[in-house]
Amino acid sequence: MVHVEQKVSGNINHSIDYSKIPTFRTCGTSEFQGALEFVRTAEAKIDFVFPEVVFPTNKLYRLWGEKNIRDMVFYHHRLLRKSSIGSFFSSDDAVFEFATKKTGDFFVEALGGGKVYSSQYGHPALRMRHFHMTIDEKAREIWLMMYKKTIKELSMPAECIEEFWNWIEALSIRMINRRTTVLDIQRFPFTDMFKEPIAQKKESN
Amino acid sequence: MVHVEQKVSGNINHSIDYSKIPTFRTCGTSEFQGALEFVRTAEAKIDFVFPEVVFPTNKLYRLWGEKNIRDMVFYHHRLLRKSSIGSFFSSDDAVFEFATKKTGDFFVEALGGGKVYSSQYGHPALRMRHFHMTIDEKAREIWLMMYKKTIKELSMPAECIEEFWNWIEALSIRMINRRTTVLDIQRFPFTDMFKEPIAQKKESN
Repeated sequence: MVHVEQKVSGNINHSIDYSKIPTFRTCGTSEFQGALEFVRTAEAKIDFVFPEVVFPTNKLYRLWGEKNIRDMVFYHHRLLRKSSIGSFFSSDDAVFEFATKKTGDFFVEALGGGKVYSSQYGHPALRMRHFHMTIDEKAREIWLMMYKKTIKELSMPAECIEEFWNWIEALSIRMINRRTTVLDIQRFPFTDMFKEPIAQKKESN
Repeated sequence: MVHVEQKVSGNINHSIDYSKIPTFRTCGTSEFQGALEFVRTAEAKIDFVFPEVVFPTNKLYRLWGEKNIRDMVFYHHRLLRKSSIGSFFSSDDAVFEFATKKTGDFFVEALGGGKVYSSQYGHPALRMRHFHMTIDEKAREIWLMMYKKTIKELSMPAECIEEFWNWIEALSIRMINRRTTVLDIQRFPFTDMFKEPIAQKKESN
């Protein structure tokens, strides 16, 4: 049994065996009971296991190329701008385009196109960079669903979709920076998202 | 090795061995690297272990009584109202007093004074009831520090402080409903908080 040391400030230091710790969702609401002569205890919990993130290979970059990746990011941001999280983006077109270009640099580099992002901006530090936006569970879902739409409408090469989707689906969970715990963090498996023949334009904006 | 099943929506279902899962804070920021010919993986993580909550006995209720407990809640809320999270409370005195009376009912019942809360309001469901307030790590600290001040200034019976403090210190972590993950959840051990002789009015408001 492996024990992991959790560093906390002050002099409370727990040696934790995670295998024994339930999540909020695996426990029901316990009965409320007033104090008695003896002490009662509610067990330690964790919230959620952030799943592993499997990064894509450079297959999409090799098959689709830089221009299509940049077009995808622009398309996605334009969808987001019209969505309920549109306020994440500037209403000033020049600012919007600059931000989208920067995101495009990130995707090009992340997908294998060389250091076009990190040479300008350094480490992505994605959670810190997104912190000024209130990303809760719902905002992450909207971001992800607009990628589903983008992938379909721009006809991403079918053989690249699964690894691209699995990457952003898991990665986007880590961007949640105002975790409410009231909403579950939903998973959106590739097989559920892309059931219909890919590259058919079923939805249009 | 115990495995805990994490229920997730969709068809992704992980059997998780928590003992192998690091927290965000036990991992540094990994090096950013663009996609290659092969797949790379970032390991699963958890955020934080919510510590167990040890509920107090009815000692405080027996020694201090209902009136002092209600006075404590009023005192605490008045401090909060003047703090940076004062907007959690109504500026209307009647509304403020009603809300504070209700919180008083909760503390009286939780500390052993009978069903004065649940008979009126049902299960406390504390996280749900607080959800309309944006409680992040900092808001929880302010709430807790105002209790430290209240305990000292109202001279809570010295022999009751440790179990009362340990209860609210751990419980308050579970009220955080906009977890940023940018700030750590600080622990405030009793021994650090109440070093000086208790019941001495060192601070005054």
